Amino acid sequence: MGGLSLLSLENQVFRCYLTYTSILVLKMMLMSILTSVQRRKHGVLTSPEDAPLLKPLRKSHDDVDRVRRAHLNDMENIPLFFVVGFTYILTNPAPLIASYIFRIYTVSRIIHTFVYAIYVIPQPARGLAWVVGYLVNAYMAVRTIITFATW
Amino acid sequence: MGGLSLLSLENQVFRCYLTYTSILVLKMMLMSILTSVQRRKHGVLTSPEDAPLLKPLRKSHDDVDRVRRAHLNDMENIPLFFVVGFTYILTNPAPLIASYIFRIYTVSRIIHTFVYAIYVIPQPARGLAWVVGYLVNAYMAVRTIITFATW
Amino acid sequence: MGGLSLLSLENQVFRCYLTYTSILVLKMMLMSILTSVQRRKHGVLTSPEDAPLLKPLRKSHDDVDRVRRAHLNDMENIPLFFVVGFTYILTNPAPLIASYIFRIYTVSRIIHTFVYAIYVIPQPARGLAWVVGYLVNAYMAVRTIITFATW
Repeated sequence: MGGLSLLSLENQVFRCYLTYTSILVLKMMLMSILTSVQRRKHGVLTSPEDAPLLKPLRKSHDDVDRVRRAHLNDMENIPLFFVVGFTYILTNPAPLIASYIFRIYTVSRIIHTFVYAIYVIPQPARGLAWVVGYLVNAYMAVRTIITFATW
Repeated sequence: MGGLSLLSLENQVFRCYLTYTSILVLKMMLMSILTSVQRRKHGVLTSPEDAPLLKPLRKSHDDVDRVRRAHLNDMENIPLFFVVGFTYILTNPAPLIASYIFRIYTVSRIIHTFVYAIYVIPQPARGLAWVVGYLVNAYMAVRTIITFATW
Repeated sequence: MGGLSLLSLENQVFRCYLTYTSILVLKMMLMSILTSVQRRKHGVLTSPEDAPLLKPLRKSHDDVDRVRRAHLNDMENIPLFFVVGFTYILTNPAPLIASYIFRIYTVSRIIHTFVYAIYVIPQPARGLAWVVGYLVNAYMAVRTIITFATW
């Protein structure tokens, strides 16, 4: 099967990728809202021109920094899923396995944010959620390289 | 219409996506230059090995931090457009609407950077520019999920 | 040649893109490991719930910050390659040129990290590695715009 039919909407794996990719986009977008909520709650201001919108109290606060770190961790990891999830479709994986991989990744990242920035749970909760997503990305990257390696 | 013909170069929406995506890539690349200009101007040094290239004066400066924040905001938002703009093409949107959506997003992000880091304009200028881009991304993500949702 | 056949697995340029993209994903994933190694080595802790896993000593350390800066630089640049490398395939470039461009980019980013965060080499080593990757991205973005520009 060529790249063409794998990128067709009849390919269940591709449709699944489109769905979970969009869910992860919305999940990442929520981080901006979460940051904004924490900023307002604690009066944390970074740009002086925001003063009319937000009563400035301090330059930083633990709760704001925590959401920022969770967001940064998303930015370090989820865009890699977007790319390597796409290349993985082209290795023609078994639909059932691929759809579970996409689901597991999405859930692991939602748990990661939850235990990091919404309701803090002691380690290794966050570490485990992170590792699951990391291994999924690594698996898809390695499978792509094995399938297409041309130097 | 299947995924194949939507990703063909005869599809005006896909060509439009390729154009605006590349413009946004160049726009984000400009942020690095802008940072470098501000670093030199204010002698802000982060790595000691840069000392021969740049007369070190201080560890940070408001103008540098401002460009960095604008760049970071781009990194939080524009890659999501790259992904969800692509998945949105596959929902087979009306060409006229899709091309306006891509244009509006691109312009909103350029305005965002302008009022944030080049010529600072009081709020809500930056907030409005940000919200427009945010809503565009949300719309495209939701439309993709509605079209392809397979659990 | 239409977009369809360019995105087929018979197109050597597309296969090459899939390979180097996945290599760069793995390269970026390594940055997380590298950060973790440096954090443990120097006892740098950002979240209090990590205390059982890591003996907290200090809030930051130069070696940790250096790896973080290298990672951030990757995040500013490599996702742009993912996007603009993809759009560049659709300009139907000569396979030999395209494959060298993908290789040069990948090598330049590996060198960038090496001289920045693993074995620090005086400037202009890092600057040169960065500029090569920057020019590659700019070239691919401009070629895409020239090919597809529709306003």
